[in-house]
Amino acid sequence: MVWEYEIGKLATAVFSITGVLAAGRHNMDIFGIVVIGLVTAIGGGTVRDLILNTEVFWVRDFSYVWIAILAAIIAFFLEGFFRNTYSMLLYLDAFGVAMFAIQAINKTIDLGLSFPVAVVMGLITGIIGGVLRDMLTNQPNLLMKKELYATPILFGGILYVILIQSFPAFPLNGFIGITLIFGLRVAAIFWGLTVPNWLLFKSYHQ
Amino acid sequence: MVWEYEIGKLATAVFSITGVLAAGRHNMDIFGIVVIGLVTAIGGGTVRDLILNTEVFWVRDFSYVWIAILAAIIAFFLEGFFRNTYSMLLYLDAFGVAMFAIQAINKTIDLGLSFPVAVVMGLITGIIGGVLRDMLTNQPNLLMKKELYATPILFGGILYVILIQSFPAFPLNGFIGITLIFGLRVAAIFWGLTVPNWLLFKSYHQ
Amino acid sequence: MVWEYEIGKLATAVFSITGVLAAGRHNMDIFGIVVIGLVTAIGGGTVRDLILNTEVFWVRDFSYVWIAILAAIIAFFLEGFFRNTYSMLLYLDAFGVAMFAIQAINKTIDLGLSFPVAVVMGLITGIIGGVLRDMLTNQPNLLMKKELYATPILFGGILYVILIQSFPAFPLNGFIGITLIFGLRVAAIFWGLTVPNWLLFKSYHQ
Repeated sequence: MVWEYEIGKLATAVFSITGVLAAGRHNMDIFGIVVIGLVTAIGGGTVRDLILNTEVFWVRDFSYVWIAILAAIIAFFLEGFFRNTYSMLLYLDAFGVAMFAIQAINKTIDLGLSFPVAVVMGLITGIIGGVLRDMLTNQPNLLMKKELYATPILFGGILYVILIQSFPAFPLNGFIGITLIFGLRVAAIFWGLTVPNWLLFKSYHQ
Repeated sequence: MVWEYEIGKLATAVFSITGVLAAGRHNMDIFGIVVIGLVTAIGGGTVRDLILNTEVFWVRDFSYVWIAILAAIIAFFLEGFFRNTYSMLLYLDAFGVAMFAIQAINKTIDLGLSFPVAVVMGLITGIIGGVLRDMLTNQPNLLMKKELYATPILFGGILYVILIQSFPAFPLNGFIGITLIFGLRVAAIFWGLTVPNWLLFKSYHQ
Repeated sequence: MVWEYEIGKLATAVFSITGVLAAGRHNMDIFGIVVIGLVTAIGGGTVRDLILNTEVFWVRDFSYVWIAILAAIIAFFLEGFFRNTYSMLLYLDAFGVAMFAIQAINKTIDLGLSFPVAVVMGLITGIIGGVLRDMLTNQPNLLMKKELYATPILFGGILYVILIQSFPAFPLNGFIGITLIFGLRVAAIFWGLTVPNWLLFKSYHQ
């Protein structure tokens, strides 16, 4: 759908900007900043396409790369402005993650693969970009944080594949899946939700 | 072979559990723990299949993912029990590594590739999962440790490709390869073997 | 071209040696040292081929791996000698990076992909090996350094694709592209060039 395509471009820009704000460090040069924005924005989809053994999406449609580069450059020069709007950006980011996760599930199913694989691809698309960025910049990644980031994608993705399996003709399945992921993620940001205590690892180690 | 397949599933579970015990940290949530178990268990085979440009094994047979997830969840809740059996788990882990390395060599040769590439694929399958896990969790990986981990795979893999090249009809080549890798690794764990001193880098750097 | 092929082998050896000198640490064993050399020398081309969804270059021509292994072993035993020639090695390294970047651009265009994708592949080939090495050995990677490393590849790559688009029959396009990358990189090493101050990130963060 055309609107989906346009929103995908907007989400790419938002991921790039939030990536720069989250991982950019004093005295990195503009090239490093652009790489951080790019990895955050297109890293997850790249790993998804590698594992699906299909063409990497930006190799055919390079506009995703241009947008991520441009957004990172804008974030470089207008960092102060974006810092002030960071909480709004996080909500846009949550919407982008939700949309990309559902798109990844559709892409996987269109390739004839199973529903569980599709949910995993939704997760990979949604979180690997940020994980790679944090590994590149030596920062603790989301595995070490308690904030709910992957769980909304997991729940929304599972609901979505149940819906399209049960009601394949129903036109609002995608809308419901995106809304659940977005809603859970917004709730997590807004109330600082974490998993309940009994789901935190009580390691005896070290 | 059927038994090989069943043991492969058991080895996947063991890798996931040892991965959680080795890299799980206090207050990680259960999602992070499952990712650690998954990366340890299926990361090496995934990178192998990406480089071989063949279908990633768990995309077709998702049961490996289910088993790794289930094993990580069990390790999450029964950490105390598994800690007490950790040394036994290390021996099971050594057996799984040995078997997966030989399987990877067979897979590579079946794709018509050369023996040296096959040995490299055995190494990648055996060590990359743990390396990725340590990178994800900011821990020193096996490149920085002196304990013999990759060397047994290297020696056993080389012996195995020499055997199948020299005696292609001999039915015990796989058994011998697995036994050598397993035996060397067990010896390394039991006696804390390292390489001799003259094979340690005497860097003048820093 | 044959000379290009031979120089590619030499460049592979140089990358492996500089990788060992840059990232080898006291008391790493020889296996770890070889992995560091290998990742530095063939990591970038491997990621390029994965993203291009084409056969990984060393899977067909394993001689690149033999050369990188051999060079790393030589660097292991003759570290003192190579330390004394390190600045000369950096210039050889710069030449190898320049040549591999132009080769990567040619390979991408031969696959029917666009010029911007080709420039990105030149960058990936030139820098990912070192970035992976630094991630594996827990060292700050080039994104966190101000020294010009990627920028010469970017400028030279852009000039090269403009030249082959504008003057496809001109025989010296490759020579000019390689010379620009090499020249800029040599200037960066020699004078310790960094980007101008206004292209350094003034983060308010942390």
